Amino acid sequence: MRMFDIIRKKRDGEELSSEEIKFFINGYVGGEIPDYQASALLMAVYLRGMSTRETADLTFAIRDSGARLDFSAIDGVRVDKHSTGGVGDKTSLIVAPLAATLGVKVAKMSGRGLGHTGGTIDKLESIPDFKTSLSTEDFLKTVNEVGVCIVGQSHDLAPADKKLYALRDVTATIDSLPLIVSSIMGKKLAADDDCIVLDVKTGSGSFTKTVEDSRKLAQTMVDIGKRADKKIMALITDMDKPLGFAIGNTLEVIEAIETLNGKGPADLTEICLTLASNMLFLAGKGSVTECRKACERAISDGSALETFAAMVRAQGGDDSVVYDTAKFEKAKYSLAVTAEKSGYISRVDTEGYGITSLLLGAGRNTKEESIDLSAGIILKKKTGDKVETGEEIAVLYTSDESKFEPAKKRFLQSTFISQEQPEDRPLVLDIIK
Amino acid sequence: MRMFDIIRKKRDGEELSSEEIKFFINGYVGGEIPDYQASALLMAVYLRGMSTRETADLTFAIRDSGARLDFSAIDGVRVDKHSTGGVGDKTSLIVAPLAATLGVKVAKMSGRGLGHTGGTIDKLESIPDFKTSLSTEDFLKTVNEVGVCIVGQSHDLAPADKKLYALRDVTATIDSLPLIVSSIMGKKLAADDDCIVLDVKTGSGSFTKTVEDSRKLAQTMVDIGKRADKKIMALITDMDKPLGFAIGNTLEVIEAIETLNGKGPADLTEICLTLASNMLFLAGKGSVTECRKACERAISDGSALETFAAMVRAQGGDDSVVYDTAKFEKAKYSLAVTAEKSGYISRVDTEGYGITSLLLGAGRNTKEESIDLSAGIILKKKTGDKVETGEEIAVLYTSDESKFEPAKKRFLQSTFISQEQPEDRPLVLDIIK
Repeated sequence: MRMFDIIRKKRDGEELSSEEIKFFINGYVGGEIPDYQASALLMAVYLRGMSTRETADLTFAIRDSGARLDFSAIDGVRVDKHSTGGVGDKTSLIVAPLAATLGVKVAKMSGRGLGHTGGTIDKLESIPDFKTSLSTEDFLKTVNEVGVCIVGQSHDLAPADKKLYALRDVTATIDSLPLIVSSIMGKKLAADDDCIVLDVKTGSGSFTKTVEDSRKLAQTMVDIGKRADKKIMALITDMDKPLGFAIGNTLEVIEAIETLNGKGPADLTEICLTLASNMLFLAGKGSVTECRKACERAISDGSALETFAAMVRAQGGDDSVVYDTAKFEKAKYSLAVTAEKSGYISRVDTEGYGITSLLLGAGRNTKEESIDLSAGIILKKKTGDKVETGEEIAVLYTSDESKFEPAKKRFLQSTFISQEQPEDRPLVLDIIK
Repeated sequence: MRMFDIIRKKRDGEELSSEEIKFFINGYVGGEIPDYQASALLMAVYLRGMSTRETADLTFAIRDSGARLDFSAIDGVRVDKHSTGGVGDKTSLIVAPLAATLGVKVAKMSGRGLGHTGGTIDKLESIPDFKTSLSTEDFLKTVNEVGVCIVGQSHDLAPADKKLYALRDVTATIDSLPLIVSSIMGKKLAADDDCIVLDVKTGSGSFTKTVEDSRKLAQTMVDIGKRADKKIMALITDMDKPLGFAIGNTLEVIEAIETLNGKGPADLTEICLTLASNMLFLAGKGSVTECRKACERAISDGSALETFAAMVRAQGGDDSVVYDTAKFEKAKYSLAVTAEKSGYISRVDTEGYGITSLLLGAGRNTKEESIDLSAGIILKKKTGDKVETGEEIAVLYTSDESKFEPAKKRFLQSTFISQEQPEDRPLVLDIIK
């Protein structure tokens, strides 16, 4: 078998065999296939596409490129939730302890963020002394005792994805459906969960800008999960506006705690209840309606917040911030952004808000950069809200005052005000089973 | 400017600007742009294509990537002929001295061959002591004195092409029209000729298998030559069967000498007369008919052969072989191939014949391999000929007897015999001006 022939086949729009896909992934990870052949193939895949069968084989080859996790030591049904990523998406912080409170086990491996804001792991590091790196033994023990544990993804999990992603990032081959699917699902399936709920974001702040594209992405991921014998479903959720009001690591953790405490924003609370109730439903804990009621109770009686606090303690963190969010370290500087004209906020460029938070220091451009954990944005007005000239629409936070000017400019460029009130669309746009 | 954005643009089917194409070529030759980004762009070009304007800009960027030649020291009109390459194509050896005999100057830089048989330079090295590497001074002096000189291409001529070709060769991006055109014309335009006649081969032994594709290739090359202020035209000629009877370096040189001596095969003689008369016509030496008559006279009166002999002498070669081809070194072994059934040779796979000669040792698989100059094939029957079972259809030559078996097998696989006599098609299928 020769890599040349594999490139030629895909170039001509032919379907690659399982063996050819394995040969590519193993050869690339092993270093026998050079970057320049891999990138030619990636571009051919980008432009020619892949069948679901090919995408599944690519996913499984990526999954099998490193060590696979063994969660058999965990008692009970293992459930995970994965989001395709969006601006201000702190749902994992809420949904994982919420579902765990109701009897499923959430053994979560999360990534750090690149661009926009930090990932779940970066956010959790806002909590003083919180450890995101545990031994496998401690990880499994915490899952068994608390019901939930969230750690950073280990290096030898699906190493092919890491190498491929770095190459895609510099060869304009990121936003290809089979490559996105195999990247997400390759890592996800290397973990050892029974049930997976996918949260596929759609709109200006996500990979897939239209509902139709998001549906295709979701359907392919669900199909592949089923081929790997997982109980799996996907929600298509709105990312034309950020979830909640907070964007930025510490700010989002505070909002997550408020939501677990029953005082969160309506949209964020709604999405989290939907995700958690579907996780419980997949795990066989009752109908979606029954599971949803249980989730509402777990929030109102404080048990979900208690699970979060227990996880923080188990992972070495200072749980006093959970009970008093005023204890979180604050940004040194803040700046109010006001409306330049009166009207309705007709739409926002969610990605532009993400870039604003990056400009404030909340994200990183390269893997080496450090994050200003307290930096970010608190939105005061969102899409559909009425505003008057000079009225506060957001507050920006940073520890480096010089960052305000470009950040404010970007924020205003991403906020559109017009005279007509925009139509609203539902938060959950579709469910793919 | 970022290479990433250039890849993305071409990936999305957009037209690249002149500046973007220059940025790519200069950055790639300079080593700032890595192979993996170049190969992603090449695959995008392969699948998305390029406009004639983009192809011209790519050609000019390749032309300008190294030193350009200065032929101003040559007295008279400088004319070149370039073939897109075919099996058994020895026309340069005949056409260059023939045209030079009639008052134009042919300062020819040729390549070595890869695959099939050797290139013009390899073929000339069959002549004892012939030097294919001369100083620029000696090269120009020979052109002025003899009218023609053929040397190997210098290393700093269009270095971008060399680097790009090596990358295309391993990433399945060779047979793309804009990439073929810019490779051929980039090198061609780095030389300093006034007129260029292109011989675009069509059929089983060439890049373009259909007349339509060959026409497109020819038209693009002619358009680009005109943009560079060259007098240029292209002939579309048949490569569904080899030219003449000889395939292999020494064997082809002998056949070229016979043709210059008026005793060549009809098809080869016809193509050479057509090419040479069009070269003279482009150079303003009269109508095509007048030029053709002059060419016929130069062959019948021996002056074309005399020019070839003078070139051999001027380049240090032993010209006695020109007057007595029996002096050429012969292959140690020969093997007759006979027809396995009676009928007509209905068609041949010219590329298969090329591979047969490669298997006999006449070509090289890698740049480092040496060539068996006397190896090759003499065809006894060609497409359209009647054959009887057991009748000799070819003789194979090699200095390594073990090569006969795979070579003979490949030769027979490439020769198709049926009961109906095939229709013939003209040698020159179209002329693009």
